[in-house]
Amino acid sequence: MVKTYGERTDKSMKTVVRLEKASLKITNKTLSYLSQHGLTFNQFKVLEVLYHRGDLNIGSITKLTMSTPGNITVVVKNLKRDEWITSIKDPNDNRASILTITQKGKEVIEKVFPEHAKNLYKAMEVLSDEELDTLYSLVNKVYKAN
Amino acid sequence: MVKTYGERTDKSMKTVVRLEKASLKITNKTLSYLSQHGLTFNQFKVLEVLYHRGDLNIGSITKLTMSTPGNITVVVKNLKRDEWITSIKDPNDNRASILTITQKGKEVIEKVFPEHAKNLYKAMEVLSDEELDTLYSLVNKVYKAN
Repeated sequence: MVKTYGERTDKSMKTVVRLEKASLKITNKTLSYLSQHGLTFNQFKVLEVLYHRGDLNIGSITKLTMSTPGNITVVVKNLKRDEWITSIKDPNDNRASILTITQKGKEVIEKVFPEHAKNLYKAMEVLSDEELDTLYSLVNKVYKAN
Repeated sequence: MVKTYGERTDKSMKTVVRLEKASLKITNKTLSYLSQHGLTFNQFKVLEVLYHRGDLNIGSITKLTMSTPGNITVVVKNLKRDEWITSIKDPNDNRASILTITQKGKEVIEKVFPEHAKNLYKAMEVLSDEELDTLYSLVNKVYKAN
């Protein structure tokens, strides 16, 4: 059964679906790698962003991890319980908190991140340097337009 | 704080993250559109695949929707309850079922799909025809390699 919604629309749909499936495949690999280390994707993302960018408030973290405030609240609560992060009141905004990764949290990331980086290197290995640049710039264009 | 894991690795990570975020943005738009029509993403995917490809067994549907057997079982149960699909035993495999979209299910897809197609057209509108082709082929390459 072949149905068409116009050539450009068909191609757009095909591309969006491929984008989702490629992304899902890599995400699933990441999830399985992280779960071997007892980490959820959101825990990892929060630790990683605090490790690489330094202290941040919850709003920025929610944005950077493309999460929802509800999800992040739970993740942050568990990370604090495990003493992987600490939080203090934001001096500029009484309702907000600023999060900091602890030494214990840093050790988690330092144990897990290098192999994660290697896994993502491998996930893109099929592309030449030029293709990788092109893919980044096209996906970035789509990201910004949506 | 700037940390590098090597130029190619950094670029691979940046690209994977952009891929995930671009895909997530479009998925979120789709989810919000579908929820306005009382559909979950998985329900929509199963109906859509039966509508456009014809009858399929659950194994094929699980693959095509990149879902898990557990998820699909629940989705199929609800779609049957709503009389949007029917199932019969697969004559070639006694443990498997073949699913068929009903007239009622077709009407759901025919109501929802054209605007969904338009939404995905718009999501990719920022790209030229050539860029869209390039994006598809690069993402497909990554998809197949992972």
